[in-house]
Amino acid sequence: MATINSNFLKLKAGYLFPEIARRVKAYTEANPDKAGRIIRCGIGDVTEPLPSAVREAMHAAIDEQGDRATFKGYGPEQGYEFLRQAIVDNQYASLGISADEVFISDGSKCDTGNILDIFGKGNVIAITDPVYPVYVDTNVMAGNTGDADEKGAYAGLLYLECNAANGFVAEVPSEKADKKADLIYLCFPNNPTGAVATRAQLEAWVAYAKANDAIILFDAAYEAFIQDPEIPRSIFEIEGARDCAMEFRSFSKNGGFTGIRCAYVVIPKTLTGASDTGERIPLHQLWSRRHSTKFNGASYPVQKGAAAVFSEEGKQQVAELIEHYMGNAKLLREACLSLGLEVFGGINAPYVWVGCPDGLTSWEMFDKMLGEAQVVITPGSGFGSAGEGYFRISAFNSRANVLEVCERLKTLIA
Amino acid sequence: MATINSNFLKLKAGYLFPEIARRVKAYTEANPDKAGRIIRCGIGDVTEPLPSAVREAMHAAIDEQGDRATFKGYGPEQGYEFLRQAIVDNQYASLGISADEVFISDGSKCDTGNILDIFGKGNVIAITDPVYPVYVDTNVMAGNTGDADEKGAYAGLLYLECNAANGFVAEVPSEKADKKADLIYLCFPNNPTGAVATRAQLEAWVAYAKANDAIILFDAAYEAFIQDPEIPRSIFEIEGARDCAMEFRSFSKNGGFTGIRCAYVVIPKTLTGASDTGERIPLHQLWSRRHSTKFNGASYPVQKGAAAVFSEEGKQQVAELIEHYMGNAKLLREACLSLGLEVFGGINAPYVWVGCPDGLTSWEMFDKMLGEAQVVITPGSGFGSAGEGYFRISAFNSRANVLEVCERLKTLIA
Repeated sequence: MATINSNFLKLKAGYLFPEIARRVKAYTEANPDKAGRIIRCGIGDVTEPLPSAVREAMHAAIDEQGDRATFKGYGPEQGYEFLRQAIVDNQYASLGISADEVFISDGSKCDTGNILDIFGKGNVIAITDPVYPVYVDTNVMAGNTGDADEKGAYAGLLYLECNAANGFVAEVPSEKADKKADLIYLCFPNNPTGAVATRAQLEAWVAYAKANDAIILFDAAYEAFIQDPEIPRSIFEIEGARDCAMEFRSFSKNGGFTGIRCAYVVIPKTLTGASDTGERIPLHQLWSRRHSTKFNGASYPVQKGAAAVFSEEGKQQVAELIEHYMGNAKLLREACLSLGLEVFGGINAPYVWVGCPDGLTSWEMFDKMLGEAQVVITPGSGFGSAGEGYFRISAFNSRANVLEVCERLKTLIA
Repeated sequence: MATINSNFLKLKAGYLFPEIARRVKAYTEANPDKAGRIIRCGIGDVTEPLPSAVREAMHAAIDEQGDRATFKGYGPEQGYEFLRQAIVDNQYASLGISADEVFISDGSKCDTGNILDIFGKGNVIAITDPVYPVYVDTNVMAGNTGDADEKGAYAGLLYLECNAANGFVAEVPSEKADKKADLIYLCFPNNPTGAVATRAQLEAWVAYAKANDAIILFDAAYEAFIQDPEIPRSIFEIEGARDCAMEFRSFSKNGGFTGIRCAYVVIPKTLTGASDTGERIPLHQLWSRRHSTKFNGASYPVQKGAAAVFSEEGKQQVAELIEHYMGNAKLLREACLSLGLEVFGGINAPYVWVGCPDGLTSWEMFDKMLGEAQVVITPGSGFGSAGEGYFRISAFNSRANVLEVCERLKTLIA
């Protein structure tokens, strides 16, 4: 008799974003006259056109596929050298990362989920609260948790509470903590809170990981939005990180690749984990094998498009996109501040994290914003119980929409 | 202390195709004067240009991404409706499959590997020998096997031996067999042997699966190469398969998408497996959740290109590609037969499966073909110990190369 992975049955009913989509659909069907007014600041999806440098490179790659002499079939599973080298030259030039430590993929969501394939059972998983739900759900699927309690917290996970007091930057567990983390998910600039970590904060995490033989899974998908030159863009700016961290990055939020699909993970060859017999095994070797066996390389035209992000023209166009979205973030942040709301993020990140007014819960605020202002935000509690009482506004939108959202916020709350 | 998945350490040193690449590289470096003569019939990669209908659709999709009004960000994780519907209309019109039973992905290698996420531990896995190595290796990684013996056979797997006597079509285990299969990997037209299963043979498998509450993982990646109208193209042509089978298909080998990346799996909503408590759980629901959480949809221009495979122009162009490759297969098959070799496949599949002459082992034949004729084939033993003494020739090549390979074979063996 074929059996299923019963860990899936522990998952809470709805992944956050499908639940948002469901409520928006229900509202639209009940209020067809309001459908045209809806502005979506919920899911963190880009809205502006794909840069012309990227489009031109993709067009050229497709033309290559039309000629037998330049046709490309299966590419290297780990990605084409031209892209891996461009990434290292442009993103890791002074950080001691080599091109063969970069693995190209079709998305960071895939990478951060699939990475669990190479880890053992019984690791203590440290997860911030609030958190990007994929980290939690993939650990549930992998059997790394027990059941969820009524607040949605899973037994067995080590939750790192983020709150106003710590500025939504997770603190290193105290030496007296009853559990030591083995795998630590960190995301900076943070989704959903927009928080960034200082060099000193990241140094503390690297020191903790090294002291406990733990591994940091560092999600830097929003790195391009960092404005402050003092804030590290990569975990590999921290000494010793090569021995205790891997880093996930993406073309989704800088190059606008959410629909095109390209990302990468950097796994230093010096990063190891323990086998059942205590032998130190390079994670690079394991991921290389996983990638070769369960993946077949990212689409060739997509990889050519990604490489064009690093052309002179591409860099200029990406800079303009970042400037556009960060201008939006500033407007949203300032509008919320002017209303006396509690505001985090929006300075080095495209997300503004806002305290709900009048003691509303996150979903109450979601329903109020949708019902009274036709603005879709993301309820903070969807990212974990510590997110209750907050909501996230995404700066990924047109300027006109953002200005309109600011106006509606003022009408709604003032 | 972070631990790794020690099951990876059970994997044999080299995945077959990297080992072939290594030997070809070593030969080329040692014999630079022969490098230009090498003809690759090893890896099953297409060689002919991407159809113009596909390229035009992809170009148009990229142009859409350049305009804010038509820009597409994140798409549905399960794939765009336009593609799912086109697949059903063109591939499953009379087989009772609906569009929401189709899940689009970036490749069948990914799908056939990742599908294990939704199954429980302890299932008895039936694998043909010889076999596409991905089925085996992903089960090793998932902890569904013990160690490999000296011949490369993993403890715990239920091997279904394919050989000349059964025409390389796996037989249903006898009722007296000491183990019953829970998950059964079948691939028709077969990679590597080119064998196809008759309706009666597939009916026997469906009957076995239903009798034992097993699930058939049916890999139909080479379906487009079936010439014989009596041979089923889909497992869903067999009555009852909706309750015991899922089917993997790809655009790689018909549309030439090996470098573009698009595939799909069909999971009927009536297909269930047992939970730990014996509850019947639809696999569709589990894969939908897996796909939503660990995947973010295939690239939009790629999906538009895939849909163009089903346009009138696209169908005509794909038919020409199939005709080209099957013409190659016929030439290779006939050349081998004329040399008195034992030959399977090549009639309804792009692979010709040939007995090695003079008692050579598969790798001896590989080295002889490379060293004396500069032709790269695939050693049969790389697909499992029952493949020893055979080699695979791929028909994916230009006509000129295939004619040249036929000539060189005659010189080498005659």
